[in-house]
Amino acid sequence: MEILIKQDLLIANEEKANDLRARLKQHNICMLNLIGSPGAGKTSLLEKTFSILRQRYRMAVIEGDVETDEDAKRLAPYQVPIAMVNTHGACHLESVSVEKALNAFDLKKLDLIFVENIGNLVCPAEFDVGENFKIAVLSVCEGDDKVIKYPLLFREASIVVLNKIDLLPYLNFNRARFYADLKKINPKVKILEVSCTTGEGVDAWCQMLLSSHPINVIVTSVQ
Amino acid sequence: MEILIKQDLLIANEEKANDLRARLKQHNICMLNLIGSPGAGKTSLLEKTFSILRQRYRMAVIEGDVETDEDAKRLAPYQVPIAMVNTHGACHLESVSVEKALNAFDLKKLDLIFVENIGNLVCPAEFDVGENFKIAVLSVCEGDDKVIKYPLLFREASIVVLNKIDLLPYLNFNRARFYADLKKINPKVKILEVSCTTGEGVDAWCQMLLSSHPINVIVTSVQ
Repeated sequence: MEILIKQDLLIANEEKANDLRARLKQHNICMLNLIGSPGAGKTSLLEKTFSILRQRYRMAVIEGDVETDEDAKRLAPYQVPIAMVNTHGACHLESVSVEKALNAFDLKKLDLIFVENIGNLVCPAEFDVGENFKIAVLSVCEGDDKVIKYPLLFREASIVVLNKIDLLPYLNFNRARFYADLKKINPKVKILEVSCTTGEGVDAWCQMLLSSHPINVIVTSVQ
Repeated sequence: MEILIKQDLLIANEEKANDLRARLKQHNICMLNLIGSPGAGKTSLLEKTFSILRQRYRMAVIEGDVETDEDAKRLAPYQVPIAMVNTHGACHLESVSVEKALNAFDLKKLDLIFVENIGNLVCPAEFDVGENFKIAVLSVCEGDDKVIKYPLLFREASIVVLNKIDLLPYLNFNRARFYADLKKINPKVKILEVSCTTGEGVDAWCQMLLSSHPINVIVTSVQ
């Protein structure tokens, strides 16, 4: 019975997510769902992205957090519209809460929306929130075994950002193992190595945002 | 309606957890529930603990994982009884799965059982699995803001293990902020700084396991 209820919830969530995707498409907006563990560096990646791209893209962010507005406060200086979603205990965002957040934006004035999901490698990957792509953010500090231990996210992600590479000299992170595991379960995935501390790889990430379909369509449309 | 179903599940989970606690008490067994993000170092802490204490304690571990037996394989060399629980997508352990795992052990031959919960800072804190204490494991790489962002776990934990302190020189981790946040929401919590890489703090952790009530009662009983 519990499983049936969960399936009902997932189906209702998916239907709403499809509606949101259609609505965003009408506005030529791309939405990216950032998923990663607590402390993987999702907010840091957004800080870097906003500081580099805010003159070129009309961006916004939906900030998911269990409690507090800590991440929203960090992003406030970049003057990008922010909609907060506090889940009050829930470990993932669902399309119904993302819909409410979207209603806070003027969609006519946006090209790209980031969803910063709850810090969690498990459930957020299961719940479509209407995004075009899922982006997995993994810190090298978490270890090279996370792809096979949390396979759903890494199978679903279009892009994996491997963050905190400035710390690699101090860790036993086996890059070859990480790449091999990832390519096995998701052969088409793009992998970007980044350090939000030193800035290494951040330009490549921004370049990819500029060149990736369907974002390149958006760029063309705002030029 | 969804909330009512969740309350029913939590009540049923709690009742089962109380039964398990009573059953473990009859055997004079202490059970510790280790909760932390993916890559916080829960398995590494168990590796260190088993290598130091296995001559003094009769220990066992319930290994919770979404998929795979990676962590169980890492712990196998320590020749401590291991019961695997794969949740197949679920982001936390519940008392019903811990009960099945306990049935795999000969409880007459154990003093201390660790539960390594699913790597997740959110839901595992909500589900009592029959433990005597919750132990939060946080890696310094995750950042000093995690206490206020994921308050339930840090409020519920009896002990917080701050792991990977060997990496502090390379991070902007504000120890004073971390301690202040933690003491504010959980004044009685014990904090142990540890590096499972260098071994720093591991003896203090083992010493605490030896001296903490109700474990000290157990030690007396096996002498």
